[in-house]
Amino acid sequence: RTLRIGLIPGDGIGREVIPAGRRILEALPTSLGLKFSFVDLDAGFETFKRTGVALPEKTVETLKQECDGALFGAVSSPTTPTKGYSSPIVALRKRLDLYANVRPVKSVAPTPAFPDPIDLVIVRENTEDLYVKEERTYDAPNGQGKIAEAIKRISERASSRIATMAGEIAVRRQRVRETTGGDAAGKKSMVTITHKSNVLSQTDGLFRATARAALEQARFRDAGVAIDEQIVDSMVYKLFRQPADYDVIVAPNLYGDILSDGAAALVGSLGLVPSANVGDGFAIGEPCHGSAPDIQGRGIANPIATLRSVGLMLEFLGQEEAAARIYKAVDANLAEGRLLSPDMGGQARTDEVVEDIIRRL
Amino acid sequence: RTLRIGLIPGDGIGREVIPAGRRILEALPTSLGLKFSFVDLDAGFETFKRTGVALPEKTVETLKQECDGALFGAVSSPTTPTKGYSSPIVALRKRLDLYANVRPVKSVAPTPAFPDPIDLVIVRENTEDLYVKEERTYDAPNGQGKIAEAIKRISERASSRIATMAGEIAVRRQRVRETTGGDAAGKKSMVTITHKSNVLSQTDGLFRATARAALEQARFRDAGVAIDEQIVDSMVYKLFRQPADYDVIVAPNLYGDILSDGAAALVGSLGLVPSANVGDGFAIGEPCHGSAPDIQGRGIANPIATLRSVGLMLEFLGQEEAAARIYKAVDANLAEGRLLSPDMGGQARTDEVVEDIIRRL
Ligand SMILES: CC(C)[C@H](C(=O)O)[C@@H](O)C(=O)O
Ligand SMILES: CC(C)[C@H](C(=O)O)[C@@H](O)C(=O)O
Repeated sequence: RTLRIGLIPGDGIGREVIPAGRRILEALPTSLGLKFSFVDLDAGFETFKRTGVALPEKTVETLKQECDGALFGAVSSPTTPTKGYSSPIVALRKRLDLYANVRPVKSVAPTPAFPDPIDLVIVRENTEDLYVKEERTYDAPNGQGKIAEAIKRISERASSRIATMAGEIAVRRQRVRETTGGDAAGKKSMVTITHKSNVLSQTDGLFRATARAALEQARFRDAGVAIDEQIVDSMVYKLFRQPADYDVIVAPNLYGDILSDGAAALVGSLGLVPSANVGDGFAIGEPCHGSAPDIQGRGIANPIATLRSVGLMLEFLGQEEAAARIYKAVDANLAEGRLLSPDMGGQARTDEVVEDIIRRL
Repeated sequence: RTLRIGLIPGDGIGREVIPAGRRILEALPTSLGLKFSFVDLDAGFETFKRTGVALPEKTVETLKQECDGALFGAVSSPTTPTKGYSSPIVALRKRLDLYANVRPVKSVAPTPAFPDPIDLVIVRENTEDLYVKEERTYDAPNGQGKIAEAIKRISERASSRIATMAGEIAVRRQRVRETTGGDAAGKKSMVTITHKSNVLSQTDGLFRATARAALEQARFRDAGVAIDEQIVDSMVYKLFRQPADYDVIVAPNLYGDILSDGAAALVGSLGLVPSANVGDGFAIGEPCHGSAPDIQGRGIANPIATLRSVGLMLEFLGQEEAAARIYKAVDANLAEGRLLSPDMGGQARTDEVVEDIIRRL
């Protein structure tokens, strides 16, 4: 089977890590029976500066009409307010209805602060909440300056499908743990619903009630997936105190955004944390890190977040075996700890890390 | 001078820590020339269950008419949606226009994860953002369930005054550091503006621009207060990677709520972290922890967050010397580490911790 993959490097180190993603796909063993073809696509702040549009229609159309999946690098945000600019990845998630942002966070090795292995996944709703970007500005009464408002929108439909996806991911993780055995097998299968319904009784109340109802489905109950919940502030606290206690965390868009950066901090580097933007039948792999202008062009970006994002993309395209190969090769590189990029305390260049991982496929 | 203090224990361990707050005020050395009188006031979920109202008018009126300041314990949130219930502390902040929630976070001792001392303060806007609680629910088109919306409101007026307060706190901290000398003296005076203007260009854009303008005032510039900014997700990441780098963090209400729990996790226990809800001429001290039903009634709650909140309240009522006494006594108790409550790994009861600290006043 041939999968056609859109490559959207974007800005900064996106241009260094997306080629690494392509290389690992090309290096997958032929025994897997997978072939890939690629198409290069534009998006980002550089594209905006050149063309006045951050997400060209051609990129959206090509993804919709030709591609099975895609890899997205990173985009720079303008440092000063820039008229007409709007984040292309946020737009892409909505245009392709990639309603879930899936962010697994896994520790490399025990540390004094976190002796127990961290292995959790944040399942972030990807299409609504404050990200609908419906804003308006008006003059305050009595001439006291301006007032701006934004809409936070939560729908039953989006909350239900994201919680269902979280439940499915919990079931799949439990299956993998049972197959793998060892310490991991003892981990409790659980979905933690994150919300702030003590303040936002209608919006977050709807998210909470809908997520709970979706997770009470017989198929999740029968698979032994426990339902848990945390108020978002308390979730952040717990995440930093007892991260090993969590399995799958499901959250509305903005809390998910914040939680996933927080979780990334726990495992040492944003350069390790992958994500996938997932819809029905389409997935875009995307490293969690940004465009990192400070190290751009030096060939030292950590490719691991991208390589793991390639794995995630493949997983959601139904290619679990290929995905597992990539994860294992990455874990082996990290476990050996000989060829690490500078963010991990090593001295290896992007290419050397990629080659080491390819060698282990 | 006699200060009249409202005591609002609320629910759960609020009833164990607020008496501790009263005791320390009564134990302050007479040489400070301060006297206190107290009035007990109701609020909370228990009050709601008894009377149908979580924040009685009498509480608000007594605070407004009789009191110079107050101490608030904690409230339990209902575990299931409860018609008519709404958080009394959120209401109180608005009713008394306590527009700033000030949360200092200070590490007890270096740890392997955080070798450098953490000493930062989060200045959270306390009256608007999603906490305006303007929500509505309607049926989705095509019968796809319900949709709920909430308003996030950011005003130039509130953003400007909270940033100004952050600037003033930065100046005051710098002055204290210079007086204290030692390692702390080298710390850079800086206010970090937290926002998500890459997505919310109008609301968070207004917060960012207004805060920046407020902090560019000559008096802050002349005092050497640097202006910094972080996108909220990145702020959470940095907070966990390099907390020692931060001094004063100013944020809209919801980000401030999340960041302050996150920062609390860094220093070991929510039981250590105080806050003050501050308006013009009035302050309510409030420990950052919740009502902790799991340990309620056992006499083992950590009183330190409350004792430090008493200090903060005094500071904002212009009693800096009395505040400094309390902080010093608490720090001495922690530094010795002999009488610690269970959340800190010790075995001391609430009363024993309080007595030890009073002894050191
Ligand atoms: C760049 C930004 C718009 C984006 C987001 O908030 O979703 C990023 O933080 C992310 O998490 O992918
Ligand atoms: C109890 C809750 C409404 C409150 C808040 O969100 O402000 C609490 O989390 C806090 O930080 O004081």
